[in-house]
Amino acid sequence: MSKFVIAIGREYGSGGLEIAKKLAAALDVPYYDRDLIALAAQKRGISADVVEQADEVKAKPWDTPAVVGMPSFNDKVFELQAEIIREKAETESCVIVGRCADQLLKHRDDCLSVFIHADPEVRIRRIMNEHKLGREEATRLMKRTDKSRRAYYQYYTDCTWGGRGSYDLILNSGKLGIDCVVAVILKAIEGTAK
Amino acid sequence: MSKFVIAIGREYGSGGLEIAKKLAAALDVPYYDRDLIALAAQKRGISADVVEQADEVKAKPWDTPAVVGMPSFNDKVFELQAEIIREKAETESCVIVGRCADQLLKHRDDCLSVFIHADPEVRIRRIMNEHKLGREEATRLMKRTDKSRRAYYQYYTDCTWGGRGSYDLILNSGKLGIDCVVAVILKAIEGTAK
Repeated sequence: MSKFVIAIGREYGSGGLEIAKKLAAALDVPYYDRDLIALAAQKRGISADVVEQADEVKAKPWDTPAVVGMPSFNDKVFELQAEIIREKAETESCVIVGRCADQLLKHRDDCLSVFIHADPEVRIRRIMNEHKLGREEATRLMKRTDKSRRAYYQYYTDCTWGGRGSYDLILNSGKLGIDCVVAVILKAIEGTAK
Repeated sequence: MSKFVIAIGREYGSGGLEIAKKLAAALDVPYYDRDLIALAAQKRGISADVVEQADEVKAKPWDTPAVVGMPSFNDKVFELQAEIIREKAETESCVIVGRCADQLLKHRDDCLSVFIHADPEVRIRRIMNEHKLGREEATRLMKRTDKSRRAYYQYYTDCTWGGRGSYDLILNSGKLGIDCVVAVILKAIEGTAK
């Protein structure tokens, strides 16, 4: 199989990270999720904790620099992560979760962009199980995280988060099940990265 | 493999019908597209030509009956087709193209709902080739047909045509290619209709 990159966007609680890990294991390639934070921090020579605060979050209005047109700290972190994503995509086959990778790599023929979603009820149950939370807390966390991811994606890409025009493949992990989603994405990669 | 139904929505020119035919051949099951018109006409004992005018088109305001609340002719054709779709889904494995089948069969665990799209440029080229049309005419036909399908779908289902919440699987046939889309849907059916 020739070189490929799988960029995965996901609704919170849809199992996107689990799917990414299983894909990476099946294809014997690395996956990048929060690791991109550490790599970005390392590159900048600053603490990963500081960078983490800006991960997949756009700047709040009150964090915007006083000088109009100056990039915010979040913008700088985005640019660093974007740089690393482009480097990784250039040099190795890999799976990248979130961080607008699908749009950053849109021009690449070897990039398959995927979005994972599921009905809220399925996601709430998953979040409750994984994080040992009550229903209300899990629902709040789901809504807040999706809202933040949507705002981040739309701010940096001008595209619709989870909209069909932004992805090659959109899958309902609640209906298909995690293992079937993995099998389907593997089939798509087999068909495109010949 | 147990009984299944594949319901396919599609942007005009994305190759949805070709994909449906290939799926039906690979799975050795029938596919229903415009045949549903003939079946609906037969059931009603009227000419297929008359029914065809209302196929996948919602009534224009001036076609609405004078008595408020009375169904239009298009509504009656929709209801007839819906009845046939539900009957087919109940009794046999099959592939159904368009006509809101995904939403009519949403409650069925054995129904996989799929939407096919592609970049406008890919679709325009396909329409030009298939219908021997110039670029302008092909573009007009694409826009008009999509507009009509979207209005029909949203009128009868209250859901978003091509929106992720309405489907289990959404595929970009321009990026993946027709044969890869067919292989991916077969993999999804294999995983869900065990």
